[in-house]
Amino acid sequence: MGNLAACCRSFWCKPKNPDIRISLPAVCFVWQIAMIILFGLFVRYDDESDAHWSEHKAINYDTINGLYNLFEHFDVHVMIFVGFGFLMTFLKRYSFGGVGFNFLIAAFGLQWALLMQGWFHSLDPNDGLIKIGIENIINADFCVAGCLIAYGALLGKVSPVQLMVLTLFGITLFAVEEYIILNVLHVRDAGGSMVIHTFGAYYGLTISWILYRPKLDQSKNLSGSVYHSDVFAMIGTLFLWMYWPSFNSAIADHGDGQHRAAINTYLALAASVLTTFAISSLSAKKGKLDMVHIQNATLAGGVAMGTAAEFMISPYGSLIVGFVCGIISTFGYLVITPFMEKYLKIQDTCGIHNLHAMPGVLGGVVGAITAATASESVYGHEGLVNTFDFEGNYAKRTPATQGGFQAAGLCVALAFGIVGGAIVGFILRLPCCWGDPSDENCFDDEVYWELPEDEESIPPILEYSSHMVGKNTDMMSQSNFTVEQS
Amino acid sequence: MGNLAACCRSFWCKPKNPDIRISLPAVCFVWQIAMIILFGLFVRYDDESDAHWSEHKAINYDTINGLYNLFEHFDVHVMIFVGFGFLMTFLKRYSFGGVGFNFLIAAFGLQWALLMQGWFHSLDPNDGLIKIGIENIINADFCVAGCLIAYGALLGKVSPVQLMVLTLFGITLFAVEEYIILNVLHVRDAGGSMVIHTFGAYYGLTISWILYRPKLDQSKNLSGSVYHSDVFAMIGTLFLWMYWPSFNSAIADHGDGQHRAAINTYLALAASVLTTFAISSLSAKKGKLDMVHIQNATLAGGVAMGTAAEFMISPYGSLIVGFVCGIISTFGYLVITPFMEKYLKIQDTCGIHNLHAMPGVLGGVVGAITAATASESVYGHEGLVNTFDFEGNYAKRTPATQGGFQAAGLCVALAFGIVGGAIVGFILRLPCCWGDPSDENCFDDEVYWELPEDEESIPPILEYSSHMVGKNTDMMSQSNFTVEQS
Amino acid sequence: MGNLAACCRSFWCKPKNPDIRISLPAVCFVWQIAMIILFGLFVRYDDESDAHWSEHKAINYDTINGLYNLFEHFDVHVMIFVGFGFLMTFLKRYSFGGVGFNFLIAAFGLQWALLMQGWFHSLDPNDGLIKIGIENIINADFCVAGCLIAYGALLGKVSPVQLMVLTLFGITLFAVEEYIILNVLHVRDAGGSMVIHTFGAYYGLTISWILYRPKLDQSKNLSGSVYHSDVFAMIGTLFLWMYWPSFNSAIADHGDGQHRAAINTYLALAASVLTTFAISSLSAKKGKLDMVHIQNATLAGGVAMGTAAEFMISPYGSLIVGFVCGIISTFGYLVITPFMEKYLKIQDTCGIHNLHAMPGVLGGVVGAITAATASESVYGHEGLVNTFDFEGNYAKRTPATQGGFQAAGLCVALAFGIVGGAIVGFILRLPCCWGDPSDENCFDDEVYWELPEDEESIPPILEYSSHMVGKNTDMMSQSNFTVEQS
Repeated sequence: MGNLAACCRSFWCKPKNPDIRISLPAVCFVWQIAMIILFGLFVRYDDESDAHWSEHKAINYDTINGLYNLFEHFDVHVMIFVGFGFLMTFLKRYSFGGVGFNFLIAAFGLQWALLMQGWFHSLDPNDGLIKIGIENIINADFCVAGCLIAYGALLGKVSPVQLMVLTLFGITLFAVEEYIILNVLHVRDAGGSMVIHTFGAYYGLTISWILYRPKLDQSKNLSGSVYHSDVFAMIGTLFLWMYWPSFNSAIADHGDGQHRAAINTYLALAASVLTTFAISSLSAKKGKLDMVHIQNATLAGGVAMGTAAEFMISPYGSLIVGFVCGIISTFGYLVITPFMEKYLKIQDTCGIHNLHAMPGVLGGVVGAITAATASESVYGHEGLVNTFDFEGNYAKRTPATQGGFQAAGLCVALAFGIVGGAIVGFILRLPCCWGDPSDENCFDDEVYWELPEDEESIPPILEYSSHMVGKNTDMMSQSNFTVEQS
Repeated sequence: MGNLAACCRSFWCKPKNPDIRISLPAVCFVWQIAMIILFGLFVRYDDESDAHWSEHKAINYDTINGLYNLFEHFDVHVMIFVGFGFLMTFLKRYSFGGVGFNFLIAAFGLQWALLMQGWFHSLDPNDGLIKIGIENIINADFCVAGCLIAYGALLGKVSPVQLMVLTLFGITLFAVEEYIILNVLHVRDAGGSMVIHTFGAYYGLTISWILYRPKLDQSKNLSGSVYHSDVFAMIGTLFLWMYWPSFNSAIADHGDGQHRAAINTYLALAASVLTTFAISSLSAKKGKLDMVHIQNATLAGGVAMGTAAEFMISPYGSLIVGFVCGIISTFGYLVITPFMEKYLKIQDTCGIHNLHAMPGVLGGVVGAITAATASESVYGHEGLVNTFDFEGNYAKRTPATQGGFQAAGLCVALAFGIVGGAIVGFILRLPCCWGDPSDENCFDDEVYWELPEDEESIPPILEYSSHMVGKNTDMMSQSNFTVEQS
Repeated sequence: MGNLAACCRSFWCKPKNPDIRISLPAVCFVWQIAMIILFGLFVRYDDESDAHWSEHKAINYDTINGLYNLFEHFDVHVMIFVGFGFLMTFLKRYSFGGVGFNFLIAAFGLQWALLMQGWFHSLDPNDGLIKIGIENIINADFCVAGCLIAYGALLGKVSPVQLMVLTLFGITLFAVEEYIILNVLHVRDAGGSMVIHTFGAYYGLTISWILYRPKLDQSKNLSGSVYHSDVFAMIGTLFLWMYWPSFNSAIADHGDGQHRAAINTYLALAASVLTTFAISSLSAKKGKLDMVHIQNATLAGGVAMGTAAEFMISPYGSLIVGFVCGIISTFGYLVITPFMEKYLKIQDTCGIHNLHAMPGVLGGVVGAITAATASESVYGHEGLVNTFDFEGNYAKRTPATQGGFQAAGLCVALAFGIVGGAIVGFILRLPCCWGDPSDENCFDDEVYWELPEDEESIPPILEYSSHMVGKNTDMMSQSNFTVEQS
C-alpha cells in the first residue's frame, strides 16, 4: 500500500522538466501535416470564392454582402491577435509568452475550427465537402476566442504543448456545443455571451482548478506587472474595446440587427468604463486606480451584451447592463479572485472569472429575459420573425418559449465548459512530457524563450547586484577609488 | 482688509489634497445614472436600427450607406481611443494617466454627446425622442475629440474629476457651437478644422491659462519622456496619421466629396511629414531630430485640411497646405510653446497650440478662401450645389457669401473656445475637492494610480540609490567585501 | 601610383561625419517643393473624386466599388506605417530610427509613387494629366512597400539622407519594373511576390553588399534587442500578419478573386506560424524559442502567396506553401543570414533575405506553376478568362504560356532588384555628405535623434556605472558610510 502510494507519487509528481525541444516541434509538425491532409480531403472554396462564380453572379446583393463580411472580419481578427495577445502581456516577464503563445494557438485553432465548424455548418450534402468562404473565417475567429479566454486562466503556468492540446479539445468541444445551442436548440447568441464567453471561461477555470499549483507563491515576484508592461496591455484592452461592437454584430442578422448590435454593445461598453473607474477608485486608499481593473473590467459590458445586443433591449437597457457589469467585474477582481484562489484552489492569472465567466452568464440571463419579453408591439411582426428567426420548423415558437430555450442554451454552455475542462484538465495532468514549468518558474519567459541580455526590468534587485558583481568589476573599482579618496 | 486677504488666500490656496476616493466614484456613479435616466427618457433606435426596419427596407441604398458608415466609424473610433490615448503616453511617468483618463473621458463624453447632439440634430418632431443610429456614433466621436484635444494642454496637471467636468461642459459647448456653425450659419466643416480643432484647442489653452501653476518647474524631472514612452507615443501618432483621411471624409458628402476628402487629407499629411523632419533637423545641433516634433507636427496637415478637404482644392493645393503646416507646427514647438509658457503663462503639456490651434485656424482660413473662390467651371453646377449644399433656404448663396460665412464660423469657434474655457477654468479653480495634484506632483501617475513596484524607468538616480540602500544590503556587503580585499 | 592609391583612399575613406543638419532639411525641402510643382503640373482628381461626378454618377456600382477600395486601402496603409514601422523597432537603441525613418520614407515615397505610377498607369490620353483616385493610393502603398523592405537590410547602418535617395530610385525602378511585368508581359501578381518582395529584397541586399561595413562588430553591443523592444516589434508583426489577406486581395480581381486571395493568404499565414514555432524550438537548447523567428518567419506564408493567392491553388495548396515557407524562412535566420554575413559580405539587419527574398522567389515560382497548370475544368471558361485576364491582345494566351510569362516576370524582378541595387549602392558610396554613421556608431539612435535622458535600457553596464559616479555622489557616500561602519 505504501509502495503503491510511493509509486503513485513518483508517477504523478515527477520533477518538472520544461524541455520542449522534441514535443513542441512534434506537435506542430504532426498537427500541421494532419491539417494539410484533412484540408486536402475535405475543404474547397465556397461559391463566392470559386472561379466559377462569374458564371452565376447574377445577384449583386451577394457581392455587397460578401464585402461587408470581409471587412467586418478583419476587426474580429484584430481582436483575436492584437486584442487578446496584448491584453496578456501585462506580466513583467511573460509578455513574450502572452502574445507569442496566443499567436501560436490562434493560428492552429483557426485551421482546426474551419474543419470542425465546417463539418457542422458548411458541409455540402452533394459531395460531402466543406465549402469555405469569408464567413467561415469569421466563425473560426469566434471559435478561437473561446480557447484564448481559457488560456487567460492558465497564463504563465502551462507549456505551449499543453496549450496546443487545450486548443485541440477546446475547438472540438466548442463546435459541438455551438451546434447544439445554435442549431438544435435554435438559440440566438450572435456575440457569444454563452457560446464563447461562458464556455471558454469555465473551460479554462476548470482546467486551472485541476492543475492547481500549491506552491505558486514561489513565483510571486514575477506574478505582477511593471510600468511598461501595463501600457502594453492597454493596447490589447483598447483594441478589444473598440472592435467589440463589430464582434457582437458580425454574424447578427444583416440589416437592422447588425446596426442595433453595434449600438447596444457600444453603449454597454461605455457605461462599464465609468463604473469600473468608480469601483476601482472607491476600493483603494486615497482613491488610487488599479490598472488591472481598467484593463479588464471596462470590457465586461461587451461580454454581457453578447446575446442581447441584436435584440430590442433599448439604449438605456444597454447602459444598465454595462453599468452593472462594470461593478460586478471590478468587485470580482477585488474580492472573488483572491477568494477563489485561497478557498476554491482556482488560480486565475488574468481574472477571466471576472471578465468572461460572470458577465457571460449574466449576458445569457439578460438575453433569455429580453427574448422572453419580446413582443410584436416592440419588434413588429416581421421584425420579431427576423430577429429570432421564427421560420421553418420554428415558426410556431413564441418569445416566451424562446426565452426558455435561451436559458437552456446557457446551461449547455456551462456543462460543456465544466465537463470538458475536467476531462482536458486530467489529460494535461497525465505524467507525460508536457514540459510545463515548476512552481518556482511560473510566469517566466526564461523557460521557453531565448531572452535578450538586458538588465532592464529584471525585478529583484538581488539579481541585479549579482550581475554587477559578476560582470562589472569596473564599477567596484570605481567604488574603491572613491573610498580610498575619502 | 488684511483679514479679508488672508481669508481669500486661505480660501483659494488651500493645500492640495489629491484624494479622489469619494469625488471620482461620486461623479462617475451620479453621471452614469443620469445618463441611464436621460437615455431612458429620450433615446430610441433610429429607423435603420429598429426591428421595424424590415417592413420598409425597400430602398437598398440605405443599407449600403449604413454599412459604409459603420466601418468608417471604427476608423474614427480607433483615432479617439488609441490615437489620442497613446499620443499622450509620451511622459515618462504619466502613461497610465494619458491613456487611462483619455479612455474615461471619451467613454463618458460619447454618451453625453449622443444626448446633446441628439437634441440638436436627431430629434424626432413627432414624439420628441432622439433617434440614434451609427451616424450619431461617429458624430459623438467627433464631439469627444474636442475635449481630448483640450486634455492635451492639461495633461498631468489636473485630476480625473476636473477632467470629467471639463468634458461635461466641453461637450455641451461643442454641441451648441456646432449647431450654430453648421446649421445656423450653414458652414461646411466636414473634418472640423474650426468646429473641433480650433474650439478644442482654445478651450484647453484658456483653461490651462487660468489654472496656471507658477511652480510647475518643481515637477520638471517628470515632464520629459523616456525612450520607450516615446515609442508608445508613436503608436498614437501613426494611428492618428493613418486614419485621418477617414476622419475628414467620414461625414463629408457621400460620393465624390468623400473620395476627395480622403485624397486631399492624405496628401497634406504626407507633405507635413517631410517639412517636420526638415525643420526639426535644421533647428538642432548636428541636425538631430526631436521625437516631440515627429509625434505631433506630422499630423498638422490633417488638422489644416479639416475644412477644405472636401472642396476642389486640388492635389497640389493640399500638398502646399501640408507643407506650410509642418513648418508652422514644428516652429511652434521650438519657439512659441516656450514663449507662451514664459510670457503668457500658458502651460501647454502636449503643445496643442502647435498641433491643433494654429493649424485649425489656418484650416478655417484655407476653407474660407477655397469656398469663396469656388466656381461652376471647376465644380460644375450640380457639383457646386452638392459640395456646398446650396439647396432649400441656401439656394441663393454664392461661393463668395459662403466664404464670408466660413470666416464667421471660425470666429464663432474661437469665441466659444475662449469664453467657454474661461468659464470652465474658473469653475475648476473654485476651492473644492477637485483632487488636483500639487505643483511638485504633476506629471506623476503615483498620485492617482497604484503603480507596480519596479525599478525600471524611475528617472532620478537618487531614488534608485536609496532603493539600493534600503532594500538591498546584499550589494553593499559585496561592495564591502571588495573594499576589504583591496 | 602610390600617390594615386593614397588619393583614392582619402577620397573613398573619409572619416564619417553624421551631421545631417544641412543635408536632410535640404533634401526634404527641395524634394517636397518638387512634388508640389510636379503635382501642380500633372495631377488632377479622377472621375470618382471630381465634383463633376454627380453629373454622371448613373452607375451605382462605381460607388460601391469605390467605397470598397477606400476601406481596403486603410488596411494596407496600416501595414506600411504601423506594420513595417514597428517590425523595425526591435533593436534596443534604434526604435526611433526604425519607426521614424520608416515614416519619413513612406511619406515621401507615396507622393513620388503617385507620380511615377500615374505616368505609367493613370495618364489621361486627352490632356496628358494623371488622374488620381483611391485606387492610386493603394498602389502607391504597394510601391512604397518595396523600399521599406530594402530599408530592412540597411536598418541602423545608413543615414536618412541615404534612405531618401534609396527611396527616390527605388520607387522609380519599381514603377518601371511593375509596368514591364504587369503590362508588357501581362503577368498576374496581385500581392506582389515578384513585383514587391523579390524586387525590394534584392534591391536592399545588393545595396547592403556594396555598403559592406567590415568593422560592424564594433557596434555589436547595440545590434540586439531588449525585452520591451521585442514586444514593440510584435505590434508590427501582428498588424502585418492580420492585414496580409487585405494586402494580397486589394487589387485582385473584384468578386471571387478577392475572396479567394484573402482565404488563401490567411491559410498560408496560419501554417507558417506552426512551422516557425517548430523549427525555432527544434534548433535551440531546451527548445527555447527565438523572438526573431516569431517576429519574421511567421509572415513568410503571406509573402509566398503574393502571386498565387488569387488563383485556384485550393485551400490545402495554400497550407502547403505556408508550411514550407515557415521552415525555409526560420532556417534562413539560423543558417543563411550568418553565412551571408561571413562569406558573402552581405549584412542584413532584419533578415529580409529570409522573409522577403526567398519566400518572394518561391511565391513567383508557385505562381508560375499554378498558372501553367490552370485548366477550364477547375476555373470554368469564364473564370479562367477573368482570373488571368485573357482578353483583348491576350485572348489567345494559354495557361501554359502564361506560366512561362510568370517565370519571365520573376527574372525581370530579380534583374531590376540586383542591377538597380548595384547602381544605387554605388551612388550611396560616393564620397559625399551622406551623414552615415561610422562602424562603431551603427544601430544607435544617439546619432540622429535627441534622446531623452534615461538610464533605462542602456545596455553596457559600464556606462551605467560611469553615470553613477558622474551624477550621483550621493550613492557613493552611502557606500562609504557603510564601509566606515564595517
